[in-house]
Amino acid sequence: MRLPAGLNQAGFDSACADLRKIVGENSVVTAEDRLSAYDDPYSPGLTNDFLPSGAVSPASVDEIKAVLKIATQYRLPLWSISLGRNYAYGGAAPCLSGSMILDLSRMQAIEANEELAYAVVEPGVTYVALYKFIQDKKLKLWIDCTDPGWGSVLGNALERGVGYTPFGDHAAQLCGLEVVLANGEMIRTGMGAMEGNRTWPLYQGAFGPSLDGLFLQSNFGVVTKAGIWLMPEPDSFSVVELTFPREEDIVGAVDALRPLRLDGTVSTATIANWMRIAATNTTRAEWHDRQGAMPKEAIEKLIAEMGIGHWNMRFGLYGRPKLVAENLKAVQKAFSTIEHVDFAISTYRKGETIRPEHRTLAGIPSVELMPLNWLGGAGAHIECPPVVPMVGKEVLEIYRRRTDLFNAHGFDHYCGLTTTSPRCFINTGSIIFDRNDAEQCKRARELGAALIEDAKAKGLGGYRGHISEMNLIAKQFDFNDHAAMRVNEQLKDCLDPEGILSPGKQGIWPKQLREAGKSGETK
Amino acid sequence: MRLPAGLNQAGFDSACADLRKIVGENSVVTAEDRLSAYDDPYSPGLTNDFLPSGAVSPASVDEIKAVLKIATQYRLPLWSISLGRNYAYGGAAPCLSGSMILDLSRMQAIEANEELAYAVVEPGVTYVALYKFIQDKKLKLWIDCTDPGWGSVLGNALERGVGYTPFGDHAAQLCGLEVVLANGEMIRTGMGAMEGNRTWPLYQGAFGPSLDGLFLQSNFGVVTKAGIWLMPEPDSFSVVELTFPREEDIVGAVDALRPLRLDGTVSTATIANWMRIAATNTTRAEWHDRQGAMPKEAIEKLIAEMGIGHWNMRFGLYGRPKLVAENLKAVQKAFSTIEHVDFAISTYRKGETIRPEHRTLAGIPSVELMPLNWLGGAGAHIECPPVVPMVGKEVLEIYRRRTDLFNAHGFDHYCGLTTTSPRCFINTGSIIFDRNDAEQCKRARELGAALIEDAKAKGLGGYRGHISEMNLIAKQFDFNDHAAMRVNEQLKDCLDPEGILSPGKQGIWPKQLREAGKSGETK
Repeated sequence: MRLPAGLNQAGFDSACADLRKIVGENSVVTAEDRLSAYDDPYSPGLTNDFLPSGAVSPASVDEIKAVLKIATQYRLPLWSISLGRNYAYGGAAPCLSGSMILDLSRMQAIEANEELAYAVVEPGVTYVALYKFIQDKKLKLWIDCTDPGWGSVLGNALERGVGYTPFGDHAAQLCGLEVVLANGEMIRTGMGAMEGNRTWPLYQGAFGPSLDGLFLQSNFGVVTKAGIWLMPEPDSFSVVELTFPREEDIVGAVDALRPLRLDGTVSTATIANWMRIAATNTTRAEWHDRQGAMPKEAIEKLIAEMGIGHWNMRFGLYGRPKLVAENLKAVQKAFSTIEHVDFAISTYRKGETIRPEHRTLAGIPSVELMPLNWLGGAGAHIECPPVVPMVGKEVLEIYRRRTDLFNAHGFDHYCGLTTTSPRCFINTGSIIFDRNDAEQCKRARELGAALIEDAKAKGLGGYRGHISEMNLIAKQFDFNDHAAMRVNEQLKDCLDPEGILSPGKQGIWPKQLREAGKSGETK
Repeated sequence: MRLPAGLNQAGFDSACADLRKIVGENSVVTAEDRLSAYDDPYSPGLTNDFLPSGAVSPASVDEIKAVLKIATQYRLPLWSISLGRNYAYGGAAPCLSGSMILDLSRMQAIEANEELAYAVVEPGVTYVALYKFIQDKKLKLWIDCTDPGWGSVLGNALERGVGYTPFGDHAAQLCGLEVVLANGEMIRTGMGAMEGNRTWPLYQGAFGPSLDGLFLQSNFGVVTKAGIWLMPEPDSFSVVELTFPREEDIVGAVDALRPLRLDGTVSTATIANWMRIAATNTTRAEWHDRQGAMPKEAIEKLIAEMGIGHWNMRFGLYGRPKLVAENLKAVQKAFSTIEHVDFAISTYRKGETIRPEHRTLAGIPSVELMPLNWLGGAGAHIECPPVVPMVGKEVLEIYRRRTDLFNAHGFDHYCGLTTTSPRCFINTGSIIFDRNDAEQCKRARELGAALIEDAKAKGLGGYRGHISEMNLIAKQFDFNDHAAMRVNEQLKDCLDPEGILSPGKQGIWPKQLREAGKSGETK
């Protein structure tokens, strides 16, 4: 077990004893067997670099305040998680080994309002739980969920996660946060800063500065509650699935999508390359038996035999049936100029059963994990998706550069382009590897870094990253000699002067660990 | 002339001499006649409480940095304005008398991108200038503007101003800020924190915390540039104007609007009570000749003779003609259940000339000021709009309470309800008065305070307020014993330790003025 820097075993034991007095005997764990639940399940061979010393699970804001007091007293770093389902980005594991996990999963309260289409959730509420809550109460509301739906609604939104419906930009649906700061101060943002103000979950602004953004992908506070906007159940929806046969078709596909996205015809859309489809339904061994990246001919054979496109676009159209029909016409017209495009349309009226493969487009969560069996073994993946302009030729250029990098590292190129924001894509590029294979892990790490460096070379930056890559990505934000990071650090020192909250998250280290943390010496 | 606290005439003169070396001889003013341009044109008799000592107009970020250095050296408070058109909220006038105006109107650079539908503007860019820029370049883009369009695009968005098109929530369209902090550090937020990142105006998030919100309605930094999302020119649009004859019709009108607003059929919508229409087109003397609020019978006579509703709702439907027609049907169906509702529909195809009264719904700015001739004299108005849930019966209740307050103070009730956010209204309640009439000014101030107190009593808070009301409104945000303000103050001390930037804005005072500022002793 890794102890927190500056604490010996006796000090740590004493801190744990004090914590147990607050949260109860069973809500502090330190034994190895219990702690492995907090390991990064997809770690590329780096589990021992990111080891927690224990975990504490408060059940209320008052308990959190008391925990923070003890942590401050002992200089015990706390790594906050909602449910720790931040898979591909580190799971529950901390940037700083020896941190204690501040596990908020016991906080599971939900409120929902049908008339004004919102919910208020605590960190422990999963998509599945929120969905069930709404179904049980027969509220005519949809949620937007990730795939899978076992993660935290609040946690995913704070990490700027994305989904598949018009409410797919999860951070954009946040309306009102409750936050406990390192000093134990509890605030509510926006209109919630007024006692009993009913517009807290209705209006995203504030009187004065908006503090909400400070707590996204952040270690400035512990978010204990959030308002989240929900979508009124639409009268109908159509799933539009388009396939484009050739690599270069992405240019026309993106340029046809952009005006539809900008004028609101299409909301969230996802584009998957051949491998994202193939890896979901097959294994590599079915298509190719040699090491290294699959050659072009094998890919073409796969595409032909699976009957998929090199590119596969998918989105929903939502609303009154006539409106959906009208928008569908516009969609068909826009994409019809692209040679060999193939359309599949599935339409659902309110109340009709939605086929499993279309459920996330209706905010129906499943608990199935992303299939990671492409290479066999203990499948895992890591991600550092850059934000890419929604311009066809730029997307193609970046795709080809990334294909080269994947291939040079012996991997097939898995590419997803998600637009929850109308002018850009988040370009996921899952590096799938066998986490029990040290050589694959090494190549995965090297490819991850190479992709991050390549994005920077093209003037693009990551929207999120694995705990092992956070320093590297943060360092790339270098405008005016890293001025934004200096401000982040200034705010960190202001809001968490003892540096107890999630040290190292998104490359932001507290003063006493700043140099060591950035250089990786804290591992 | 009011000198800044702590500076004598010699010190102030020395500061001005140093500033002139930076910005040029003519870009520092102190003489009374030139300074009156910075007075609040709608001050309710409080001009002398909010007097600047001078104004300095830098033309670049480098000049701003140098100005901040001098201000820090002399402890010279600077009140930042873009163009100072914050009418009804204080205009260009500072919260703290003796502040020097930091006038950014010389910074007028514009970039625009048609393909990705955005602009990047400096503080001195007016709606009119941005509109002209786009027209001159024949870009197929619409802006969203306020009424009138002479104000700053950037300044209005930072104050969370609102407009009339689907892009009416101006702060929500901001994407990427450039900010100079008090210490002279210049940052770019979001993706702009990476040198040369082309997604700066495309993606609203960041790697790590979002700092953008910190600079809304704020005195934490000087915003020098902002990305702002624009709307692609639609193929057509229809202006829908609905009138509802009776006061109580607002219940059904709001409840019919809400589902259309939540599902995106209707975007920004504005509801005006009888007086908002009457005051725009007539004067009170035409309808009633006695002092005090107009009696019910006179109001009914006015409504009948003008052929308007007690309530008058207006919004645009935008898009392909068939889509607009389809949405129009849904709108008509939704409102048809309300007795005596009257519809007027005006449809424009791309390229058709839009009638003057519908131009703001197409983002076409005019420079006509809001008519303020209702009571005659030197018309002025102040505002402190609360944020109100979009629920019919709540809106009616608040409306009646506010009518009683307007009337008790001898004013007619001017009410506007704007929804740029789909779950709430910003409830403007213009207090129109003759600024040359001391008694009216006094009543206006008293009514302003009474409305603010009444909102608080109903659990509602102001979204914005006049400089003379900022302390009062800020104080109402009392959750957890004003915890949010303590955090704002902590951030203020962190980002602007010398307290030189816009002291008192939105009730946030720097450390050395905190007690005096909040208690009003600094006036």
